[in-house]
Amino acid sequence: MILYNEAIQKIRNEFECIFLEIEEIPLKKALNRTLAEDVVTDINLPPFDNSAMDGYAVRYEDDVREWNVIGEISAGNYRDYSHSPGSAVSIMTGSRLPEGFDTVIPIEDVDVIDNTVSLLPTINIKRGINIRKAGSDIKKSQPAVGKDTFLKSRFLATLASCGKSKVKVYKKLKIAVLATGDELIKPDQQPGTDQIRVSNTYSLCGMIEELHQSPLNLGITGDDFDELKQVIADTLSSDIDILITTGGVSVGKHDYVREVFSILGIEEIFWRMNIKPGKPVYFGKSVDSKLVFGLPGNPVSSLVNFELLIKPFLMELYNFCEVKKVNAVLENDLYKTDKKRHFMRGFIAQDETGNYTVSAKLSQSSGNLVNFSKSNCLIEIEEDRLNPVKGETVHCIMM
Amino acid sequence: MILYNEAIQKIRNEFECIFLEIEEIPLKKALNRTLAEDVVTDINLPPFDNSAMDGYAVRYEDDVREWNVIGEISAGNYRDYSHSPGSAVSIMTGSRLPEGFDTVIPIEDVDVIDNTVSLLPTINIKRGINIRKAGSDIKKSQPAVGKDTFLKSRFLATLASCGKSKVKVYKKLKIAVLATGDELIKPDQQPGTDQIRVSNTYSLCGMIEELHQSPLNLGITGDDFDELKQVIADTLSSDIDILITTGGVSVGKHDYVREVFSILGIEEIFWRMNIKPGKPVYFGKSVDSKLVFGLPGNPVSSLVNFELLIKPFLMELYNFCEVKKVNAVLENDLYKTDKKRHFMRGFIAQDETGNYTVSAKLSQSSGNLVNFSKSNCLIEIEEDRLNPVKGETVHCIMM
Repeated sequence: MILYNEAIQKIRNEFECIFLEIEEIPLKKALNRTLAEDVVTDINLPPFDNSAMDGYAVRYEDDVREWNVIGEISAGNYRDYSHSPGSAVSIMTGSRLPEGFDTVIPIEDVDVIDNTVSLLPTINIKRGINIRKAGSDIKKSQPAVGKDTFLKSRFLATLASCGKSKVKVYKKLKIAVLATGDELIKPDQQPGTDQIRVSNTYSLCGMIEELHQSPLNLGITGDDFDELKQVIADTLSSDIDILITTGGVSVGKHDYVREVFSILGIEEIFWRMNIKPGKPVYFGKSVDSKLVFGLPGNPVSSLVNFELLIKPFLMELYNFCEVKKVNAVLENDLYKTDKKRHFMRGFIAQDETGNYTVSAKLSQSSGNLVNFSKSNCLIEIEEDRLNPVKGETVHCIMM
Repeated sequence: MILYNEAIQKIRNEFECIFLEIEEIPLKKALNRTLAEDVVTDINLPPFDNSAMDGYAVRYEDDVREWNVIGEISAGNYRDYSHSPGSAVSIMTGSRLPEGFDTVIPIEDVDVIDNTVSLLPTINIKRGINIRKAGSDIKKSQPAVGKDTFLKSRFLATLASCGKSKVKVYKKLKIAVLATGDELIKPDQQPGTDQIRVSNTYSLCGMIEELHQSPLNLGITGDDFDELKQVIADTLSSDIDILITTGGVSVGKHDYVREVFSILGIEEIFWRMNIKPGKPVYFGKSVDSKLVFGLPGNPVSSLVNFELLIKPFLMELYNFCEVKKVNAVLENDLYKTDKKRHFMRGFIAQDETGNYTVSAKLSQSSGNLVNFSKSNCLIEIEEDRLNPVKGETVHCIMM
């Protein structure tokens, strides 16, 4: 039985070997994808000196407080006014500054009478105020968005400004999910005496989607050795990157999944882990380096295992960051007497001042899916820590 | 000029009046949607008493430590063994418990010789251990997932278990985004003397998608009164729910957007706000209750305004929760001398122990989009707070 930290390291090693392919897509499809090229800007940003305010462009001269308005420039409607002493040009925010002018006086700082603008008595100005210089955000040919950046919406704006209507991104991983078990039926069926509805394929495909990868729902296969072997062999010979199975990986007489993996030449990296819930988890690798996870059939355990063993590495691989761990103060005592690492279901809340508390009054039974779905975090209690009590701080993994 | 808190209240009032329509969709499409019905389970969960372990089902009797194995049950392969004193049935995790049996002994706690299982000398058992009772997660006809629940993947598992292969959810809002300005060109065009590439439509449509709503990109319209009026009138007569414009809403001579809104009968709820960046923001409502936001044209300001004035209410409306505000310790002094509410760009980091620090060494100029895109939070400095210094705690809004 492998320790949590060792298992994590072994999984990380394999994820670090994944080679992501690259595709070019339109910018408007690039949200939540990861950039596979260094993008430099093909122009200065901003492209030209421009006004940061609505006001009057002047050439600054000491002690001059009055100007004659000779024209007007709005954004996108530039005119080349030749500067003469004492002249001003009415200018709108974002408009290009005319040649020979170097300062913009905000509209609220002047009096305007006919074509004459004069500074209000209380106002003093300096040369160069309210000008955004060409290239002050970034200069032509400089790096604007780096390779491996996860593209949140604000990066789309930068890429558009740099002239990138198409971008190179890493392809999504194709992750197949197969639920195994003779007891499983589809959600729209009525269970017989000893049947239960499949739920793992829905939750795991959902998690894969939440991580912006491509799920492939393989549905249900019964505990039949030959059928399992066929389905898994077919799947592994397709273009998937990762296979996740649920169920059939413990020590029961009909738990064929591990044996099937072995017969199909999958190298076992570990099997069974010192955590709760989710002990029987399997991790391996096919000869062509497809990763294979055998998760427990229990719906809570399979979700928790995905959360711990797969999600963090997909996030790392694609540089997908979000708030994942927070410290919170326990609102009730927890029961933990063994030397496993426990991941307990909790509900985390944030008070007005931004501090976190977490309650774990929900059932901790991994049979309780409904209760589990109402939790919003996993409380991580390390191997050596026993029975944490109310008021102690614990690490929580947001779900 | 309206204060931040007042503006927020006015926007909240209008969002609270939005009536969301309902549609029924397949469960596998329901990720990131919000449930529009109370779902009860049509069966007990679990549906039958079952074994929590691989082991042996027995009927508990004081002092009995040895049993005769009369058969085997695996998940989905129930057989009705009639109980006789001293009999045990080999049973797999999740399998239905046979009638007359009440206790499961884990496989690791027994010795097996031929058909006889006996407790290991160190092991003692109690009646009822390792049984998950029918309905212990939730009983038939009880509420399983409440109306207004935002469907993360774990809820999909619960809904599948409850037999919901289709679910009623709230329709997405259709949110149109129009960039205005004579200076704007498309990203794949080379800017002339006084032109800049549009970026707001990309970033705002991206944010709308991040919030799981439907963006409608209306592209660019120049600063032409009649053209603007036509485009906005057409958009408002279509089936959109919210219109967002960028640019043309300040006091410049070609800022027609507010006048167009007025002529089209849009009720102005507020215009201009005491915040930085983003002062000229407009908020109104059409006669048929479509919400209208006029954001500044500046790419940083429009994004910050969306983050503050639209995103929180879309999240509330759809019950879409994520970690949004955290407290962090400042890593450098901030410059803030006025009585506006400032939202400064920062980069937040979390140390090993889960505590947050935030640095704001990036440029605070709203002209600096590239810099802005590299930040990951807004540092909120209230009206009355001036020049916070290194080591102080500040509120940060995650982006």
